[in-house]
Amino acid sequence: MIKKNIYLIGAGNVATHLGIALKSNNHNVAGVFSKTYKPAKALAAKIGAQHINNKKIFEDKEGIFIISVPDWALEDVINIMKNCKGLVIHTSGSVDMNSLSVFKNHGVFYPLQTFSKEKEINFEEIPICIEANNEENKMVLQKLAQSLSKHVHYVNSEKRMILHISAVFACNFTNFMYQLSEDLMHKNNLNFSILRPLIIETANKAIIKSPKEIQTGPAARGDMNTIRKHEEYLSNFPGLEKIYTFISQKIQQKKS
Amino acid sequence: MIKKNIYLIGAGNVATHLGIALKSNNHNVAGVFSKTYKPAKALAAKIGAQHINNKKIFEDKEGIFIISVPDWALEDVINIMKNCKGLVIHTSGSVDMNSLSVFKNHGVFYPLQTFSKEKEINFEEIPICIEANNEENKMVLQKLAQSLSKHVHYVNSEKRMILHISAVFACNFTNFMYQLSEDLMHKNNLNFSILRPLIIETANKAIIKSPKEIQTGPAARGDMNTIRKHEEYLSNFPGLEKIYTFISQKIQQKKS
Repeated sequence: MIKKNIYLIGAGNVATHLGIALKSNNHNVAGVFSKTYKPAKALAAKIGAQHINNKKIFEDKEGIFIISVPDWALEDVINIMKNCKGLVIHTSGSVDMNSLSVFKNHGVFYPLQTFSKEKEINFEEIPICIEANNEENKMVLQKLAQSLSKHVHYVNSEKRMILHISAVFACNFTNFMYQLSEDLMHKNNLNFSILRPLIIETANKAIIKSPKEIQTGPAARGDMNTIRKHEEYLSNFPGLEKIYTFISQKIQQKKS
Repeated sequence: MIKKNIYLIGAGNVATHLGIALKSNNHNVAGVFSKTYKPAKALAAKIGAQHINNKKIFEDKEGIFIISVPDWALEDVINIMKNCKGLVIHTSGSVDMNSLSVFKNHGVFYPLQTFSKEKEINFEEIPICIEANNEENKMVLQKLAQSLSKHVHYVNSEKRMILHISAVFACNFTNFMYQLSEDLMHKNNLNFSILRPLIIETANKAIIKSPKEIQTGPAARGDMNTIRKHEEYLSNFPGLEKIYTFISQKIQQKKS
């Protein structure tokens, strides 16, 4: 446990899940600071912290200030906090640690997961990637991260961005494929849940083995007959057809 | 249980898993017929069936003949079997039932799952889509399917193809995204398994909620700054960059 006061700057998905995890591990979440009134109020109430709008908190030299806002809002927040005396960290995948170099003590605390406010999550299993501007801050962040998760990695800014891009492929793009699949099924009054076992098996297999080894389907087999049949059907949905054709080609190029 | 003799025509991934499931449900798998010697021999041995190369089996009027070969090989197999007297079915997602109309009794038995020979699978949870040329054959296939799985659906050929295309998006294309992600990580000496919690959470959330509701990431947020940063990094890997840009654009178009 860390005795320092912890402040959450932001009240979105990541701040919410992080706040809950910090609270349930008995950390001292002293306040939630956010421009958005309602979400901040709600988060503060949820984790028994104060909703603070007073810049005085930034004078807490011993405090840990976790900025968890959209990347585009980061600059504004840094400006507001610029005289902060504590340890200032952000939770972003693709923002360099140096963006916080105006603060004497700074670092990164990036939980590699997809968060939705309404869905509970087991924080213990979430990989946390930390980075810090010196050894002392690194030790603080390591202790903090290890109190929440079994999987703590020290990762520099470049590697973190690569992890983030990899996560975009494995999570965001994957989910987009699910979405296209669901679209097509709904258009035909088919229930998406029929694909559940397939989706779970594909995810499990990719982890246990390797996605490269388990690639199946018409494109991987070079089964042009089936591909043509699918494209012919999808010509009713030009958006889908274009994506189908593009990815099928990429799969085939990769094999050759 | 069905008293008829069941014959597997083919010895690939689907035939193997189906053979094992039939055997463990005490069906009478009388023989494995396949052009490929070694896999057929191995499958026959595994399920205690005979490896048969004699066309006489096709005279078994009461037999159920499950053709489980690549789509491109189907025509050849139909030719070999053309005088078959039994109930002839195939296991393909995208081949019309009518392709078997040369047989008096015919149908389809399509297990909606991705199979690898070396990985065990719980057949009970696999949706099986059946189709038959008459009521009597439908009853036989229904009984057979229900003995293996809790999820049996009667689906005509067009809907089955739509299911198959949906499965290509949700399984093959998804796995390709995993593959790109793994590639990028390996190129940077990062271990793909770090993405495990993210991949599993994404799959689970898509099913519990809906992929549309849970789409996150730079493209869904319209975070062009991050997208540009990622593209700049990926410019070292032109293949990956092209796919990243294409899918990011499609996600944004879908939102608008």
